[in-house]
Amino acid sequence: METRVLEIRKGILNKNDEIARGLRERLHACGVFTINLVSSPGSGKTAFLQRTLRTLREEGKTAATLVGDLATDNDAKRLAETGMPVQQITTDGRCHLEAQMVSDHLAKWDMGSFEYLFIENVGNLVCPSSYDLGEDVRVVLLSVTEGEDKPLKYPTIFNSADLAVIAKMDLAEACEFDLEAARRNIHAVRPGMRILTVSSKSGAGMSEWLACLAEERAARGFSVHPR
Amino acid sequence: METRVLEIRKGILNKNDEIARGLRERLHACGVFTINLVSSPGSGKTAFLQRTLRTLREEGKTAATLVGDLATDNDAKRLAETGMPVQQITTDGRCHLEAQMVSDHLAKWDMGSFEYLFIENVGNLVCPSSYDLGEDVRVVLLSVTEGEDKPLKYPTIFNSADLAVIAKMDLAEACEFDLEAARRNIHAVRPGMRILTVSSKSGAGMSEWLACLAEERAARGFSVHPR
Repeated sequence: METRVLEIRKGILNKNDEIARGLRERLHACGVFTINLVSSPGSGKTAFLQRTLRTLREEGKTAATLVGDLATDNDAKRLAETGMPVQQITTDGRCHLEAQMVSDHLAKWDMGSFEYLFIENVGNLVCPSSYDLGEDVRVVLLSVTEGEDKPLKYPTIFNSADLAVIAKMDLAEACEFDLEAARRNIHAVRPGMRILTVSSKSGAGMSEWLACLAEERAARGFSVHPR
Repeated sequence: METRVLEIRKGILNKNDEIARGLRERLHACGVFTINLVSSPGSGKTAFLQRTLRTLREEGKTAATLVGDLATDNDAKRLAETGMPVQQITTDGRCHLEAQMVSDHLAKWDMGSFEYLFIENVGNLVCPSSYDLGEDVRVVLLSVTEGEDKPLKYPTIFNSADLAVIAKMDLAEACEFDLEAARRNIHAVRPGMRILTVSSKSGAGMSEWLACLAEERAARGFSVHPR
């Protein structure tokens, strides 16, 4: 029984990978740089995206966001306040987003109308690690309130990410957060991974984050001004 | 393909439920009251259990703990410092505990030697909701740093729980946590569910939590002094 499930699960993953590959090609052809944001529930993905979208807008950049949740469209409403295009993906109890869900929702947009696509995954440090969504970079968010040991305890998601962002730095002191220990643990799982620290509340670290995104975008051959 | 997976998944769940039923009978026969603790990664399950075990020990009670993680035995080490029996269950990447894992680990203990069994599930607000571990009560922990909307966004786990504990109350002010909104959201998903507030750091709310456990234990017909 177990073997059979693993075989079928592998089949689904292969199917997902195939859809993700096609999606990545379409996104690249349209000049869209895509970020898949993963974290625990409550790490502050939505607050981080709100600040990111507002800042990009001030800089004259264009970005769209897909936000995944098991239920409710609370996050989409919060993000839509930034004035950027947003769609909620409701997974009806599923614990992760899949490439097909992204593809279906993208069909409702003119893909030539934005430079960045953010995908806020379902809050879950386990299952989303197995699903490629056609992204260029996978960013794992870790908030200071969760403790420094999460990379060791959830190695797969840190291993599959390209960039780590430590969030809620404004609470670091109250939580007695040990930044050096967190860095050590991230690098134990994924040596050399770039680590940024931010506070969505104060805005600290946001300019470094946006500069980093612009670099990653340029490194993948996207033109500076695609339109 | 999807239908086939659902069928097989249902098969696994039925198998899990069957094992859980047998487990519950064995635990009851031995006078062991069992608590399945679920939450996001980093909500403070381990700190909460450390404080719980220390307090139970001071009261002359006996408790054993099984702690699930994808990797590392960090949590088991932290909990073993309380002097109570602890075993780590490493799930090798699986996102939840199953009844068979609990059963296998319990085989290593004399089940007549403790009154309480705590099971600290893998940090995940989605998948553990589907797996009965033979527990008497399922307790969902929500930390103030995660925000008040989690019950609405992860309804299944709140719906399947018997008791909600709001943790890290010492950080409530720094996080601008709205306790009434959290209560409303929990009750929107699970009307009437008992809600406790605690700080594992200061110890606030711990005596209410232990009194509540004792009540739940008595309500299920366990004797006050089984040994």
